Amino acid sequence: MSTELQRGLEGVVVAESDLSDIDGDAGELIYRGYAIEELAREASYEETLYLLWHDELPTETELAEFSRQMAAARELDDGVLDIIRELATSGEEPMAALRTITSALSADDPDADAEFNDTEANNRKSRRITAKMPTALAAYNRLRNGNEPVAPRRELSHAANFLYMLNNEEPDDVLAETFDMALVLHADHGLNASTFAAMVTASTLADLHSAVTSAIGTLSGSLHGGANADVMRMLQAIDDDELDPVPWVKDAIDRGERIAGFGHRVYNVKDPRAKILGEKSEALGEAAGDTKWYEMSVAIEEYINESKGLAPNVDFYSATTYYQMGIPIDLYTPIFAIARSGGWIAHVLEQWEDNRLIRPRAQYTGDRDAEFVPLDER
Amino acid sequence: MSTELQRGLEGVVVAESDLSDIDGDAGELIYRGYAIEELAREASYEETLYLLWHDELPTETELAEFSRQMAAARELDDGVLDIIRELATSGEEPMAALRTITSALSADDPDADAEFNDTEANNRKSRRITAKMPTALAAYNRLRNGNEPVAPRRELSHAANFLYMLNNEEPDDVLAETFDMALVLHADHGLNASTFAAMVTASTLADLHSAVTSAIGTLSGSLHGGANADVMRMLQAIDDDELDPVPWVKDAIDRGERIAGFGHRVYNVKDPRAKILGEKSEALGEAAGDTKWYEMSVAIEEYINESKGLAPNVDFYSATTYYQMGIPIDLYTPIFAIARSGGWIAHVLEQWEDNRLIRPRAQYTGDRDAEFVPLDER
Repeated sequence: MSTELQRGLEGVVVAESDLSDIDGDAGELIYRGYAIEELAREASYEETLYLLWHDELPTETELAEFSRQMAAARELDDGVLDIIRELATSGEEPMAALRTITSALSADDPDADAEFNDTEANNRKSRRITAKMPTALAAYNRLRNGNEPVAPRRELSHAANFLYMLNNEEPDDVLAETFDMALVLHADHGLNASTFAAMVTASTLADLHSAVTSAIGTLSGSLHGGANADVMRMLQAIDDDELDPVPWVKDAIDRGERIAGFGHRVYNVKDPRAKILGEKSEALGEAAGDTKWYEMSVAIEEYINESKGLAPNVDFYSATTYYQMGIPIDLYTPIFAIARSGGWIAHVLEQWEDNRLIRPRAQYTGDRDAEFVPLDER
Repeated sequence: MSTELQRGLEGVVVAESDLSDIDGDAGELIYRGYAIEELAREASYEETLYLLWHDELPTETELAEFSRQMAAARELDDGVLDIIRELATSGEEPMAALRTITSALSADDPDADAEFNDTEANNRKSRRITAKMPTALAAYNRLRNGNEPVAPRRELSHAANFLYMLNNEEPDDVLAETFDMALVLHADHGLNASTFAAMVTASTLADLHSAVTSAIGTLSGSLHGGANADVMRMLQAIDDDELDPVPWVKDAIDRGERIAGFGHRVYNVKDPRAKILGEKSEALGEAAGDTKWYEMSVAIEEYINESKGLAPNVDFYSATTYYQMGIPIDLYTPIFAIARSGGWIAHVLEQWEDNRLIRPRAQYTGDRDAEFVPLDER
């Protein structure tokens, strides 16, 4: 037994996984062997979910059935809608609201009492959680803005339906495809902190709802999921002040600030997802006749790369992609959660195939043999 | 970087901690140097919380102020009560309900937006979460039984007030003191899985509500917090069948079943908390003139010890202790959560003093270079 302190567990291998792999030096990401670039271009989010949850890409028949099941699971129970209404009107933050609502979904899940190794029940629960989270988030966003929720439509894809529920307007193909691609890109990424939190929770044989709830809370932290919104707020601040981005960023670095969207524990080169989203961000700008946000981003990327040797991560270009799609900034991290729910669940299901309780140790560095002095003598 | 697979992280040292230490060979547990036996006998739960959160035992003045602040934080917002009503009437399980309700508490927390290193805000949030969880659990239990919640009373201790809210009747001193002691015994225990889940969540700088919510979900699993209820259900099954416990347990073992309440990853001898709770269980039986449950437990302990070399853990005697106090069996694990909230928060606050993102790696064992076949060619 090693007693070397391994804070942050950096480089510690805690599991074997067939799900995704990152080559941080080459800038490569694969899901079950498929390059992320190919999945982003060719596969829908439903197809990607099927790949992650069921070992291989679906046939046309399998995908049609899976998509039908996903679409049929989108509706929310009235009780959950009441809770969403309560949170939206109380001004709860989006990630906190999504955490509470996803936790509450277990109350209405017919398989809530199923055993952890009941494969069929897990498949149903996986679909329900991933199908209902977008409905919940869209309902929350509408309610906090004084609008009634929009009921999901089964004939729309997972991505298109979310945008439809969010805006009460069916998205055009470019928007739907861009959003679908963003979901695919965010679906899995090895043992990031939120995925690992889901695994720690699931390792006690707690249920899927508990695991996903842990993951959402973990993703909400500024060192994890919060960076995409921070990137956009930075770009807005630069734009509001009508400044050139490079001197602004240089000043910020001189003040000791961290520039959101750069660097990643596992990538030493540019995150492949950032490349793909950068292209999307540019295309959206060109389609709208204004590539301002993309150009600002490129200027910052080049400056940070030259001055600090850091490359952008997935958050850097998802920011302007979502912004140009008209998505409210404080929904970027919840959208990350909606996409990553697929990966969280996949890792939990994989872990349960051969579960082991995850319980490390701490090195005790406190007092020993303290003498208890009664309260009235202290 | 070691690439050795360390599933379960058994023996891996992930943090330094001044909070609690376990000597698994000697059967000793300390909180900040104080023996658990002494704290159980001499210190209240409020005193123990102060010790865990503020480095040392409080003076009389400090304890009075801390207890006043804790008591003042017990009330729940109407919005949270609405959510509890919703969950209780929908038949949600107690641990799932407690997870959702605790998550929802952030919506009403005035310090929800405070920075992670804002000590004063963290102190207030810590008190609020730990003070409100018992109110929420008692309200949930009353509502699911068709009774209205009982408002907390500030002049009662944390332990006595919970029993009062649960039963709408002030507990006698023996009950209040026994419950207080059970809370002290469960307040902390190194990096168990739920505490570690809280730390993983907090390591992204997610907030206290997220961390405690992760911990509750993690504790709900049958390999962690669920064992105390399983012990009592086993004893009831034996009693219902009017069987001798030893042959019953022997048969169960022969059928390959695991006997709840025995063995622990870190104890090789009897858990010191089991010793203390065993005495309480006996005392409660004697006071009621019926030591049946205690005697059954002792017989099982002796048999398992002789036949399997396993000693009872904290869950084994908390079961009959709570049962003889009239607490519903499915609240045992939520009560564990209420007590452990103190330790979860203490570990998160300790971690934030010098935070590092907790992100291990997985060894990828899946396919590489898979060739993407378009959907219509599969």
